[in-house]
Amino acid sequence: MLIEWNRSPTPDGQPVYRQIADAVRAAIEAQGLARGARLPTIRELAARLGVHRDTVATAYEALASDGVIESAVGRGTFVAECERAPGNGPAPEPYSPTLAPVVERLLDFERARPRFGSARDAVAMHALVPDPSLYPADAFRRALNRALSQGGPELLLYGSPQGHPGLREALAERMRAAALPVQADDLVLCHGASQGIALALRLFCAPGDIVALEEPTYNNVLGAALALGLRTAAVPMREDGVDLAVLEQTLARPEVKVFYTIPTFHNPMGTTTDVAHRRALLDIAHRHGVPVIEDGYEMDLRFAGKPVPPLAGLDPSGLVVHLFSFSKSLFPGARVGAVSARGRLREALLALKQASDLSDALPLQAALAEFVADGEYDRHLAKLRRVLRSRRDALDAALEKHMPDGARWTAPDGGYQVWLELPDAVDTRDLLADAVAAGVLFAPGAQFHHDGRPSNAMRLTFAMADEEALELGAQRLARVIASHRSNGSPGAHHAPV
Amino acid sequence: MLIEWNRSPTPDGQPVYRQIADAVRAAIEAQGLARGARLPTIRELAARLGVHRDTVATAYEALASDGVIESAVGRGTFVAECERAPGNGPAPEPYSPTLAPVVERLLDFERARPRFGSARDAVAMHALVPDPSLYPADAFRRALNRALSQGGPELLLYGSPQGHPGLREALAERMRAAALPVQADDLVLCHGASQGIALALRLFCAPGDIVALEEPTYNNVLGAALALGLRTAAVPMREDGVDLAVLEQTLARPEVKVFYTIPTFHNPMGTTTDVAHRRALLDIAHRHGVPVIEDGYEMDLRFAGKPVPPLAGLDPSGLVVHLFSFSKSLFPGARVGAVSARGRLREALLALKQASDLSDALPLQAALAEFVADGEYDRHLAKLRRVLRSRRDALDAALEKHMPDGARWTAPDGGYQVWLELPDAVDTRDLLADAVAAGVLFAPGAQFHHDGRPSNAMRLTFAMADEEALELGAQRLARVIASHRSNGSPGAHHAPV
Repeated sequence: MLIEWNRSPTPDGQPVYRQIADAVRAAIEAQGLARGARLPTIRELAARLGVHRDTVATAYEALASDGVIESAVGRGTFVAECERAPGNGPAPEPYSPTLAPVVERLLDFERARPRFGSARDAVAMHALVPDPSLYPADAFRRALNRALSQGGPELLLYGSPQGHPGLREALAERMRAAALPVQADDLVLCHGASQGIALALRLFCAPGDIVALEEPTYNNVLGAALALGLRTAAVPMREDGVDLAVLEQTLARPEVKVFYTIPTFHNPMGTTTDVAHRRALLDIAHRHGVPVIEDGYEMDLRFAGKPVPPLAGLDPSGLVVHLFSFSKSLFPGARVGAVSARGRLREALLALKQASDLSDALPLQAALAEFVADGEYDRHLAKLRRVLRSRRDALDAALEKHMPDGARWTAPDGGYQVWLELPDAVDTRDLLADAVAAGVLFAPGAQFHHDGRPSNAMRLTFAMADEEALELGAQRLARVIASHRSNGSPGAHHAPV
Repeated sequence: MLIEWNRSPTPDGQPVYRQIADAVRAAIEAQGLARGARLPTIRELAARLGVHRDTVATAYEALASDGVIESAVGRGTFVAECERAPGNGPAPEPYSPTLAPVVERLLDFERARPRFGSARDAVAMHALVPDPSLYPADAFRRALNRALSQGGPELLLYGSPQGHPGLREALAERMRAAALPVQADDLVLCHGASQGIALALRLFCAPGDIVALEEPTYNNVLGAALALGLRTAAVPMREDGVDLAVLEQTLARPEVKVFYTIPTFHNPMGTTTDVAHRRALLDIAHRHGVPVIEDGYEMDLRFAGKPVPPLAGLDPSGLVVHLFSFSKSLFPGARVGAVSARGRLREALLALKQASDLSDALPLQAALAEFVADGEYDRHLAKLRRVLRSRRDALDAALEKHMPDGARWTAPDGGYQVWLELPDAVDTRDLLADAVAAGVLFAPGAQFHHDGRPSNAMRLTFAMADEEALELGAQRLARVIASHRSNGSPGAHHAPV
């Protein structure tokens, strides 16, 4: 019995046993196993998936209570009779759905996400998720209470697709202070910057059109583009930002409808471009009339260096659609982001938002408005920036101490991520299994490539791990790299992609 | 100066003055009005839009405080200098965006939504939005508090794209009790049934494909299909449900990839099909291998008659994707719905959900799980059903009393909406202005047609109006109908559509 299980790479509220139960259930369905078919023993499956036996036992219990499987003491575990069909007749032929082609491609993309084991004590340097121990959960709960008490039932109606006016006012004021001259009316609140990306792409692109993207870039924008049936054109990242000569050529192609960029605290590289690079980039976009989506998802997280105006602040013409998010600077769980766009673009965004899900949940937006107005957000940012600065320094020092000669890494002025390039022509995906075994997790560089081709780089985050853990993680990672270098020719373990 | 303003048909947290301010700003931008261009006087604009002068005055004040317009006492109101451009140089050429073609069509669709005036004391029978005075807002706030206190910071992480396990368990149990045999693992929580519709359509349809829809049907599903670049095929509704002969022909067309239906408490008609009709419908879908999206958005709102199993409960093969929502049975503001789908469909839904917005807000889902588990939801439903039953009876009696001979209307066993057909070949859009003036609002039938062609029907809801208001609304409506009938030939006031 083939059980496909990729441990979810981010903490997502779905316990491991539940993930495994899902995988077993999916395998039963996909393979059409009949009643009585024998399942692997708990011991076998635990060994195969690299998890504790208790975890598999819990997964089997959950499936048994759902009526999917049955256990007989001393005999093993078996597929139960399908209880879905009402009546007692023979089970009907299961429907085999024909999915839209783009959905099939999206499923392939999802399956190619890196797989992490379940090493519980691993140093988590793979995920770009802020540390829950730093969330001001109580202050937010109080703000939510106040918002609901004051707002009453009206707050539980549909909101306008544009979102809570008070939060838009508060955000616009913050943005103006950050050299982004927007008014509350220019903002469309959305379900995290991730929804902002999908909506902004849909503004400009029809299926088959091309979105120009930096390479490497944020993994989920690749998924969003794929899900919309878009093609991508890669513009390589240099140390000082995206390669402007390649950008010029790329934006000259008529089928390129928009350019997505992360100029500040780039994901995955951690780098920030200077004003001259930004002006040159805008000149190119203007010359070709190609709009720009600027992902400012970490704009509030600068802990070193001087602020650089966002692209949207340097472009008074309205060519730049800017994305903001609370997910990295506060926590992801409110699912609140904002898109800035003007005139017809704003109107079109509202229409797309309405056609996607009508509107967002006002209570969370109202609570954030309270939270920002009371200064809680700024207090949180001040604390978070100190923590991040200290963690970045610790990671930088640990890499300096442990990495082999010739390795290079970035030193971000904000955000959570460092880009580490190894001296050899290794595919860092090949290091992952050993790294998991050694107790350290990272995001392989290939994950940020349009075509998933190998990369000798990796993204390390100092989001979940503190200073001590980062030192330990760098040590472990260095051992894995060293052992891989001494074990035969680089790249020998993987087939070409 | 042409100011396009469609009053938003549902209460949406956006006050009328703000809608007008937006429209004026959009007109200034769209028409490229220069500094100093004169705006209509408050009196003029109020008359033109049919709103009170105070409303226009407030809109102008808001625009002035945003720096968009300037007033000079005794001279009038003028477009202000654009303050967006940083620096003092000449303002740059504003960027004129090329939108994706589907977005242009979506904007046309939005502009065709019916326009309501701002008559404050009108009887609101147009909107399908539950009455806020019935929301258990305090009980929900307490549930949210408990959920956040117990869940702590973990609840503020990204959730799994599938949603909160506890809420899925609770919903699955309720669904099984309602003859819908699903497990928690078959459910994908989403941002209201509206997002469920968009995701379910994307499962099966590529741009250019056809979705078969009932006619009349839910207005927003037309917008969702349009936004995805889909074509629609209309299958007419009869008294006993969708016309099965036309359905058979429609599903035989190879470009039809899915059929969207509302068998229970149909929107806009309020009718419910019987088991025989459901089985016949499923037979047709099976014969042609066309999957069915069953919108069960009001499934918890039956207040009369016997329950009928949902299509998804009559189909053990997995051909039916079922949608559930809390928006009508509790309140829309939590933005929580659920899609039931199995195996590969569930996996594909999760991938699409992730590519759209990663995941939903766990705090609201966790609060709903508490709310359901504590019996608060059932207590609320019991109360709401009594209210709805009484309001339906009141509306039915009032229509009986006031409507002209030959008018026909439905008597729903649940939900909020009645479908009223007038005896004449009138386009009910032509009655709307007079109805607004007379103090009653309705949703014209054309709004529920694929091509927006005229309809002599209208949807009346007993969502926001109580018994007394419904009687008053029916009286007013009857007067408008009578006056229209005596004023020359029906249909004389509108150009053909």
